[in-house]
Amino acid sequence: MSDQSTNPTPSPAPPTPTGRPPKVSGRGRAAGPSSNSNSDSVDIPEFEPFGVVGPRGLPPLTEFLDIWDVDMMRRPDEINKKRHHTVLYNSENLIVRRGQEFEVKITFSRAYKPTDKIAVEFVIGSNPQYSKGTYIPVFPTKDRQTIWEGRITNTTDNVVTMAITPAANCIVGKYHMYIAVSTPYGIRRTRRDKSRDLYILFNPWVADDAVFLDDEEEREECVMSEMGIIYHGAFDDVAERNWNYGQFNYGVLDACLYILDKSEMPITNRGDPIKVTRKASAMLNSRDDEGVLVGNWSGDYTYGVAPTSWTGSTDILLTFASSRMPVCYAQCWVYAAVFNTFLRCLGIPARVVTNFYSAHDNDGNLKTDIILDEEGRIDRNRTRDSIWNYHCWNECYMSRPDLPTGFGGWQVVDATPQETSDGMYRCGPASVQAIKHGQICYPFDAAFVFAEVNSDVVFYSRSNDGTMEPVKVNQTHVGRMVLTKAPGALTRRDITDQYKFPEGHNEERTVLVKAEEYGCKREKSSLPVADVDLVLPTLEISVGDDFELNVEFKNRSDERRTVDTYISGSIVYYTGVTSSEFLFRNPTVTVGPNKSVKETVVVESKNYMKKLVEQANLNFIVTGKVKETGQIVTAMKVVTLHNPKLTVEVSGPRKVNEEMMATVEFTNPFTFSLEGVFIRMEGPGVMLPKSKYYSLITAGSSLTWTEYFTPQRAGTTRLIASLDCPALRQVYGQVSVTIEP
Amino acid sequence: MSDQSTNPTPSPAPPTPTGRPPKVSGRGRAAGPSSNSNSDSVDIPEFEPFGVVGPRGLPPLTEFLDIWDVDMMRRPDEINKKRHHTVLYNSENLIVRRGQEFEVKITFSRAYKPTDKIAVEFVIGSNPQYSKGTYIPVFPTKDRQTIWEGRITNTTDNVVTMAITPAANCIVGKYHMYIAVSTPYGIRRTRRDKSRDLYILFNPWVADDAVFLDDEEEREECVMSEMGIIYHGAFDDVAERNWNYGQFNYGVLDACLYILDKSEMPITNRGDPIKVTRKASAMLNSRDDEGVLVGNWSGDYTYGVAPTSWTGSTDILLTFASSRMPVCYAQCWVYAAVFNTFLRCLGIPARVVTNFYSAHDNDGNLKTDIILDEEGRIDRNRTRDSIWNYHCWNECYMSRPDLPTGFGGWQVVDATPQETSDGMYRCGPASVQAIKHGQICYPFDAAFVFAEVNSDVVFYSRSNDGTMEPVKVNQTHVGRMVLTKAPGALTRRDITDQYKFPEGHNEERTVLVKAEEYGCKREKSSLPVADVDLVLPTLEISVGDDFELNVEFKNRSDERRTVDTYISGSIVYYTGVTSSEFLFRNPTVTVGPNKSVKETVVVESKNYMKKLVEQANLNFIVTGKVKETGQIVTAMKVVTLHNPKLTVEVSGPRKVNEEMMATVEFTNPFTFSLEGVFIRMEGPGVMLPKSKYYSLITAGSSLTWTEYFTPQRAGTTRLIASLDCPALRQVYGQVSVTIEP
Repeated sequence: MSDQSTNPTPSPAPPTPTGRPPKVSGRGRAAGPSSNSNSDSVDIPEFEPFGVVGPRGLPPLTEFLDIWDVDMMRRPDEINKKRHHTVLYNSENLIVRRGQEFEVKITFSRAYKPTDKIAVEFVIGSNPQYSKGTYIPVFPTKDRQTIWEGRITNTTDNVVTMAITPAANCIVGKYHMYIAVSTPYGIRRTRRDKSRDLYILFNPWVADDAVFLDDEEEREECVMSEMGIIYHGAFDDVAERNWNYGQFNYGVLDACLYILDKSEMPITNRGDPIKVTRKASAMLNSRDDEGVLVGNWSGDYTYGVAPTSWTGSTDILLTFASSRMPVCYAQCWVYAAVFNTFLRCLGIPARVVTNFYSAHDNDGNLKTDIILDEEGRIDRNRTRDSIWNYHCWNECYMSRPDLPTGFGGWQVVDATPQETSDGMYRCGPASVQAIKHGQICYPFDAAFVFAEVNSDVVFYSRSNDGTMEPVKVNQTHVGRMVLTKAPGALTRRDITDQYKFPEGHNEERTVLVKAEEYGCKREKSSLPVADVDLVLPTLEISVGDDFELNVEFKNRSDERRTVDTYISGSIVYYTGVTSSEFLFRNPTVTVGPNKSVKETVVVESKNYMKKLVEQANLNFIVTGKVKETGQIVTAMKVVTLHNPKLTVEVSGPRKVNEEMMATVEFTNPFTFSLEGVFIRMEGPGVMLPKSKYYSLITAGSSLTWTEYFTPQRAGTTRLIASLDCPALRQVYGQVSVTIEP
Repeated sequence: MSDQSTNPTPSPAPPTPTGRPPKVSGRGRAAGPSSNSNSDSVDIPEFEPFGVVGPRGLPPLTEFLDIWDVDMMRRPDEINKKRHHTVLYNSENLIVRRGQEFEVKITFSRAYKPTDKIAVEFVIGSNPQYSKGTYIPVFPTKDRQTIWEGRITNTTDNVVTMAITPAANCIVGKYHMYIAVSTPYGIRRTRRDKSRDLYILFNPWVADDAVFLDDEEEREECVMSEMGIIYHGAFDDVAERNWNYGQFNYGVLDACLYILDKSEMPITNRGDPIKVTRKASAMLNSRDDEGVLVGNWSGDYTYGVAPTSWTGSTDILLTFASSRMPVCYAQCWVYAAVFNTFLRCLGIPARVVTNFYSAHDNDGNLKTDIILDEEGRIDRNRTRDSIWNYHCWNECYMSRPDLPTGFGGWQVVDATPQETSDGMYRCGPASVQAIKHGQICYPFDAAFVFAEVNSDVVFYSRSNDGTMEPVKVNQTHVGRMVLTKAPGALTRRDITDQYKFPEGHNEERTVLVKAEEYGCKREKSSLPVADVDLVLPTLEISVGDDFELNVEFKNRSDERRTVDTYISGSIVYYTGVTSSEFLFRNPTVTVGPNKSVKETVVVESKNYMKKLVEQANLNFIVTGKVKETGQIVTAMKVVTLHNPKLTVEVSGPRKVNEEMMATVEFTNPFTFSLEGVFIRMEGPGVMLPKSKYYSLITAGSSLTWTEYFTPQRAGTTRLIASLDCPALRQVYGQVSVTIEP
C-alpha cells in the first residue's frame, strides 16, 4: 500500500487532455444505439438460417421459391401515386400515405402457391425492431396479419400482386422494402435495392390518421397547394407576399426528412404529428440546434440573403440539406413559409397565418407596458417595445389524443425564435380551441400564444421620484386581426374569430378570467376612461410621398377640454422596435363641449426617407394629458409605406413542356441609385428559383430581365418576382399564368 | 445599369468568411438587450437631475438630507437571518426570504423628518425596469407604497430603521441596494457597495409564496437539512447512500445562481418556481447546454470522478462554478442529489426519491417489451433493456397556478438525461397528484413519469418467420416501490401510494384507462394466465460469496405440469443493460398437481467475480414453456451484491470550534490487489470534502487514514466516506457525531 497525497478541499477531477469534457460512450446506459436518423440503415442478411448450420453447411436452395423481380408501380401514371395524392412529387421512388392500401408486383421463380410462406418486409432506421415499429413484416394470409395488413389481389403466372396497408399511425419517412421467403433451412430475401425504397407520409384523407382533415377543399389548399400568399403590413392596409412553397420539388422531401435526422429525433417518434411538429418548430430556426434558418432583424444581410428577398422555400431547404449548415437569413414569414413547406411535404395540413399587432417577449403575461413621463410624453428609455406590427406563424391540423376532448383541429406552431418561450426556441403545437377558450393549461405554449393575441397595452405614468401608476389600458390594440389565405382562392380569410370571441361578446371577459386562473397576469386597476378620444386615420401612402396626418380629438363631455399633446413619428422595424424619431410636435389642442377638432401634421418625405429601414414602417404615437381633468389620452398607428412594384409578364405557348418567356421590368423611381440589387423569380410547377444580380440601377433608369422556362404541369399558377438591395427591400411583382395540358 | 450574372437554380447565399453562419446583432429585434444574468449589473447614477440642468450647473446640495451609513444587519446573531431561517448560510451578505419583512438601519446627516422623501431601491440584472420587477423602489410612507412594502419601525437621532417586505412572488437572486433621497434638483443616492448586496430566496414559511409548505417538520427536512440518504439496490434488499447536500457551504448559493446565469434564463422568470425548476432540470445535465454534470454509465471514469465516489454536492457545484465547464461524472442519484442541493439552497422544498424497477426510454408508452424465441428463451438481440433496477429523481413542492386546482404540492423534476423525453434532456415539473390520477395531459412530462412507475412488461413470443405474439403481461413489476428519507429521521419512508393506488384498488385500473385516453399505449390482448407460477427468493449476498438460487415452481392445476425452463444469470448495470451472461441452465422441471418444486442453481463467485461491473448487480431471468399447455411462465429478479464497508470513527472533544480527529479504515477482503483508489470524506457542518489517493491496496492488506477537522456548529450530524477504484466501486462508511455547543 502506498500513501501518496491528501487533497485539500475541493478535490478537482483529473483534467482532460483537451480541456473539454471527454466524449462518453453509451455503454451501460442503453443496450443498443437508439436510431435517430432516417438516412442510417442496416444491412438485412440475404439469408437468415434457422438454428445452427451444421459443419457441412446448407444444401443448395434451388428447389425452393425464389424472387426474380419486384415492381413498385411507382410511375406517376400508375395506380399508387394517383390514389395516394402523391403524383406531384418530383421523385423516382414510390411515395404513399399511411393507413391506405398500395400495391406491389412480385415475380417469383415459379407460380405462387397458397402454402408458400412469403412476407414483404419494411425497415426504417438502423435498429429495426418489430416492437418499435421500425421492422414490419407483412404477410398475405388472413391468419398471419401484423400491424400492417397484407393481401394478394391478383396472381398471374409467376406474378403476384400484393396489396399492403401501412398502419394509420406508422412512422413517417423513407423505408427499405424486402421480399422474404421462408425455406426449411431459413429465410431468403431480396438484396437491398434503392429503387424499392419508398416514402410513407401522413394521410389527411384517412379517418384513422391523426392528421385526418374531413374537407376536400381544405386538403387541396393545405396539403396540395404550392402557391402561398402571406399577409403583412397593417390591419387596415394589408399587403401580400406571394410564396412558392415548392413542397413537391425535387429534393425537398429528402431535405425535410434530413431536418428530422439533423435534430436526432428518434425514428420511433416520427409517426406522431404532435412530436414531429414540436421538434420541427425547434429545428426550423438555427438557435440551440443548428437548425434551418438564421434569424436576422438587423438590416445588415451582407453574409446572406435578405429575408425580404426570398420568393420560395425550395432554395432554402435544398441549400440547408446540401450545406448541412443554417441558411442566412429569415424573419417571421420566412420561418413560417419554410415550416409550411415542411408540413405540407410530409402530409400534415398546414397554413400560414398573420396576427396584426402581435405582443411578444412578455412570456405569457397579458400586459405590454408603455411608460409615460409626468407630462404624458412617452419615455423611450423605459418602454421596451414588444408589439410587433404583425407576426406570422403556422397552423397545422391534427387530433390531440394527449389532451381532453375538444382540443384537436388547428394547432399553432411557430418556428420564429422567441426570446422567452420557456427559454427554448420553439413553440407549439398549441390548440387554437384552447387559446380561444382561455384553457391555456394544456401543452404546448398555449399561454404564450394566448398573450400574443390577447395582451392589454397598459400606459403607466412615472413620476420623478420613481413611482409609477397605470393611467390607461387598451384592451383591443393587440391581436387586432388574424388572416390566412382562403382555400382555393387568391383572397384572404379573416380567422380572428377562431382565436377570440368578438369584442363585447359575453364570453370575451370569461375567457380572460379563465386565462388569469392559469397564471396570466393582467392590470386590474379600474381606471377612469378619459372623455376625450383620439382617432388616427387609415392611410395608404407610397414611399417618397409627402402626406398629412390628421389627428382627430373628440370631446364627449359637456365642458371645454384642453389637451397638451405629444405627437411622435418614428421609423420602426416590423417588430415594433424603434430605429429613430423623425417627427415631433407638441401642440395644445382645445376642443369645445361635444365637439371634434382635427390637428393636422404635415409629414415630408425628406424627413423620413434617409432614415427608413426595411419594410418602411412609420409608427405614430400620440399621447396627451387633459388639463381640466388630468386624464391621459393615447392613440397609436403604424403606417406601412407602399413600395414600387415589379412588372412581370409572360409570353409564349402556355403549354406543358413547351418553352416560354418571362420578363421582369423595374424602374428606379427615386432620386438616388440602387446598388447591389438581386432580383429573384420562381413559380410553382413552371419555374425553379432563378436570380439575377445588378450592381447598379441609377436614379430613374429601368431594367428588363428575360428568362426562358418550360412549364411542367397544367393549371393556373403564378410567377413571383422580388427585388432586393440594401437601400430598397420588399419590392415584389407577380403574374398569373394558365398552362394548358 | 450593369447586368452581371444569372445564377442557375438554386442560388446559394454568399459564403461567410469563416464558413460558419455569422453572428447576428439583435438590432431590429429587441429594443434593449434582455437581462439573463444575475451577475451582470448596471451602474445607477449617484445623482439623477430633474429636467435640464442650466448652464451654471447645480447649486451645492449640502443643505439637503444626505446618507451617511447603511447597516444591513446581516450578522447571523442579528434579527434578519434568524427570522428568515438563513443563519446557516456561510455568507457575509444579508440573505432573506421573499414575502417576509426584514430591516435595515440608515444613518442620515441629520434627524429624519416625515416630510423627507427617501426610498430604498433594489436592482437586479443589467436592465432594471419597474414593470419587469427588476427595479423596485420602496417608500416608507403609507401613501406611496409599491409592490414591496416599506415602513419605518424606529427613529433614533439620525438613525432610521426601515422594514421592507419583498413581494412574495419577487425574483429570486442577488440584488443591489441603494438609498435614494429626493432633493428639489434631483435624486441623490448611495454609491454601489457590495456589502449591501443581498440575496432574496424562496420562502416556504410564507403562505403567499408559491413554495409555501405548511408543515414545519417537512420544511426542516426538505429545506434546512444538509444530510441526505438516497436509496438504491433492490426493492426487497434496499441499500443506502449517505449524501452531504451542503446547500449552506461557502460559495454554493453563488454557484446555484451561476447555473441559472449559464442557462441564460431571463432574470424576469426567476421568481417562478415552475420555470426555475424546469430550467434547472435541463441545466443540471451537460446535454444541450453545457450544464453541470456529464452522465457516464460506461464504467470508464478515467477522466473524472466515478459517480459512486462522490459523497456530497459541494465539490461538484464549486468545481462547475469555478471551471465553468461540466463536471465528470454523474449517474441518476448524483443528478438528483446535486439538483436537491440547488433546490434547497434557493429555498424550494425538495427531496430525492428512488423508484425501484423504473421503466425508461419508452417515451410515454406503457409497454416494455421482452422478446422470447419459439422455445421460450429470451432473445437478447431483439430485447432492448429498458427497466432500470432503480432510478432517482427529485420532488419539489409548489403550487401550480398554471394547472387546474388540485395539482399543486409535490412535483417530479428529473435532471438525468433521458433519451426520449420530448427530445430534450429535461423533465418536469410534473404533478405527483396528476400522475397518481392518470391526468397526464398537463405539463410538464407527466406522461413520461407515469410510464416510469406504471409500465407493463409484455413478453412476446417470436416465431422463426418473424411473427410475434404477446404471451404474458406483468403489470406489477415496474414501479414496485418509491422511497424517500423520512423527515427528521434516518429511516426510509415508502411513498408508493402517492404515485399509485394500491394494486387491486378500484381506482387502479380507472387511472390506467384515463392515461390511455391521453395517448399512453398498452397491450390489450387478453392472455391466458399460466397455471404454474415461478417464484424467485429474496437474497442478501455479499460480493465474493457462493450461494444457491432456489427457483420455486408452483403448480396450481389439478394435473401434472412439465416446464422446459431457461435460467439465465447475467451481470447488469443498474440501468438494466446487460454486460454479460455468466450462468445458463436449461432444466426440465416436473411438478405434480397442486404441488410445489424447488430447482436449485448453485452460483459460484468464480463465475461472476471477473465479470462484475459497478454496483455489482446480478440479474436472473427465468422463462419457460409448459409442455402440456404451451403457456409461458416467467420470473425476474435483480440481486445487488453487498460490498465490503469502510469503518469511520471519530475521537476528540466533540465541541464547536475544537479540533477533533476522524479515522477511516478499510481491509481489502479480496484475493486481488486494488489499484488507483480514491477515498473521500465529508460531513455537513463538520468537514468540507477531503480526499486521499492510494495507488495500491494489496490483497488482504489494511489501510488507516486519519484527518483532523473542526466542527462549525452544534447538533447531530454524520461523517460520510467512500472508497472507489476501477475494480471496486460503491464502498461506503459513515459515523454519527453529536457536537456540543
